[in-house]
Amino acid sequence: MVSYSEAAKKITEELSATLNQVDENEIYSLLEEIKKADKVFFVGVGRVLLSLKAIAKRLAHLGVKTYFVGQITEPAITEKDLLIVGSGSGETAFPLTIAEKAKQHHATVAHIGTNPESSMRAYTDCFVKIPVSSKLSLPGEIKSEQPMTSLFEQSLLLLGDTLALMIIKEQNIDMKELWQHHANLE
Amino acid sequence: MVSYSEAAKKITEELSATLNQVDENEIYSLLEEIKKADKVFFVGVGRVLLSLKAIAKRLAHLGVKTYFVGQITEPAITEKDLLIVGSGSGETAFPLTIAEKAKQHHATVAHIGTNPESSMRAYTDCFVKIPVSSKLSLPGEIKSEQPMTSLFEQSLLLLGDTLALMIIKEQNIDMKELWQHHANLE
Amino acid sequence: MVSYSEAAKKITEELSATLNQVDENEIYSLLEEIKKADKVFFVGVGRVLLSLKAIAKRLAHLGVKTYFVGQITEPAITEKDLLIVGSGSGETAFPLTIAEKAKQHHATVAHIGTNPESSMRAYTDCFVKIPVSSKLSLPGEIKSEQPMTSLFEQSLLLLGDTLALMIIKEQNIDMKELWQHHANLE
Amino acid sequence: MVSYSEAAKKITEELSATLNQVDENEIYSLLEEIKKADKVFFVGVGRVLLSLKAIAKRLAHLGVKTYFVGQITEPAITEKDLLIVGSGSGETAFPLTIAEKAKQHHATVAHIGTNPESSMRAYTDCFVKIPVSSKLSLPGEIKSEQPMTSLFEQSLLLLGDTLALMIIKEQNIDMKELWQHHANLE
Repeated sequence: MVSYSEAAKKITEELSATLNQVDENEIYSLLEEIKKADKVFFVGVGRVLLSLKAIAKRLAHLGVKTYFVGQITEPAITEKDLLIVGSGSGETAFPLTIAEKAKQHHATVAHIGTNPESSMRAYTDCFVKIPVSSKLSLPGEIKSEQPMTSLFEQSLLLLGDTLALMIIKEQNIDMKELWQHHANLE
Repeated sequence: MVSYSEAAKKITEELSATLNQVDENEIYSLLEEIKKADKVFFVGVGRVLLSLKAIAKRLAHLGVKTYFVGQITEPAITEKDLLIVGSGSGETAFPLTIAEKAKQHHATVAHIGTNPESSMRAYTDCFVKIPVSSKLSLPGEIKSEQPMTSLFEQSLLLLGDTLALMIIKEQNIDMKELWQHHANLE
Repeated sequence: MVSYSEAAKKITEELSATLNQVDENEIYSLLEEIKKADKVFFVGVGRVLLSLKAIAKRLAHLGVKTYFVGQITEPAITEKDLLIVGSGSGETAFPLTIAEKAKQHHATVAHIGTNPESSMRAYTDCFVKIPVSSKLSLPGEIKSEQPMTSLFEQSLLLLGDTLALMIIKEQNIDMKELWQHHANLE
Repeated sequence: MVSYSEAAKKITEELSATLNQVDENEIYSLLEEIKKADKVFFVGVGRVLLSLKAIAKRLAHLGVKTYFVGQITEPAITEKDLLIVGSGSGETAFPLTIAEKAKQHHATVAHIGTNPESSMRAYTDCFVKIPVSSKLSLPGEIKSEQPMTSLFEQSLLLLGDTLALMIIKEQNIDMKELWQHHANLE
């Protein structure tokens, strides 16, 4: 049997190293865009989309109007809105198509990815680099022992939850009151 | 501006402390049940469900037959199958209903939660405790500075990805080959 | 080869007969509740949920604030809101749990089903009968040649779209303008 | 109050007229492709996707291996598989991207739409025309009084359920047995 504690330690060490190497200024720029936006849209695929949905849900509790592309009651995007793209490689077809359309509607586009020089760059106003190995790995990135792009998806979730924690501290939000606006039918 | 690096450090420290306090034997029992099962079903709500879906997706890449309750093409559960319930409090109505039904069909039920003495206990064959504060907090748990149940949802995702890493190491799975069975239409 | 035109004729005849036997007054009561409500929530499972999501999406285009239980950014329900339950038998566990919770929050509950005497009755303020055979079939219902509960799910979708058409005609909504509020990123 | 019975009659008449004008041979070709395929994938957006999911769910009960693009546990598509695209206009960006990828993997592509001369044509092996007005309306189509593309989405669901009924009659499937393979946790 492989040791649980070794495997868990490996993963949390990878996450600490990754989040520690994110450029703080990129985070502050993204946070400003979120605060400025009327509505915040999210787009991604697979496990990346799951991380983005978790971020959208938490930010909604904090008063940010969040939506993900493809949801049942998705409003029109406007020039006052922000689209956050999650895509490690920056080459995934669906997010690229959506980012192009968002720019046609003059929305702001933020990209959280691993590669600032990807095809997504043409549509990106604000880039946050998560420095991990993706399929298109670059020198200087955290080399993960985990399968596929797990480290990117985990880091993305934690990065979003870090933004949530920063907003709570900055605005002195009372965490007990958050439950009042939470879904009460589950 | 609240410091990004402090907020990120806080979150990764909470996660390391939490995963470090999980009982290894509970993990090994859960892993055995996953390996023994014909099919593995997942049930949860909200952000917990998102973590479970991410786990289901990764385990599917490793050859485990995974489903979540409510998915479009959900098969019948049988006595050879495992239901994994994600519920911090162990009191959420929907997972309780599903766990009861799973036992009526003689499936094995695993519960990942914070409280071994919850209502879920009546249906649980295998319990894994994530020792964090939930709404019903207990002495001895990690006290989180994060909002709501973020720490539980994050820990759940990482715990699932730890299981994936253990399976990969145990079975010497070649990570490059994993991409072959991955969705190729995205 | 079974004839397409015979099979299609069978289905459209079943639908015409079913919608023709719905009690108009039940429809008018439901329509009033939708117009009165601050927010309209939908709950159901399986193909019924798919029909409800389609209704929620179309009504949202007409200015109704619609949500489905379990969606990522689901607000709290209040006494000014309406929950619409889709359940043929009125005995499905999940909708029953949610309807009970909605009544605890003093919301109005509407049930679209086949059986006015089901367990759902305890929570229902407004019932609309779709008179088709379900697993618990009653005398006087349309007997369907289709599998499972297909006729209920189809009738539910068309009933919702009939409500949409009634709202459009009543409020003289310009259909070309509807596209302006439609998602523009797809 | 606008009359319910008039509105419902209008919708069912539109549906009968539409399904009646579908070319039977196009249906038989599609049915052959479904029967020949190892796996059947579905792609669409919005309410069209909801209709496709309902079709996928019903066909799965009849033994067809169905998936929709973007689902949590989506397998790789191969040259033995079929992709069914639902897109009225045949110009929606996401289905076009996916159809192009499906052809790169040598899968068969079927398109259910309103316009045989759309951009989708480049990737389509098998086309089924639902002759209704879309945004890009053509002469000879059914002119709908319903908003947006409701008539297309309804017709698509009924067309899929017609295929299901044809399979049941052709294979003499016992409808009572279908419930045995149905999800039993709801």
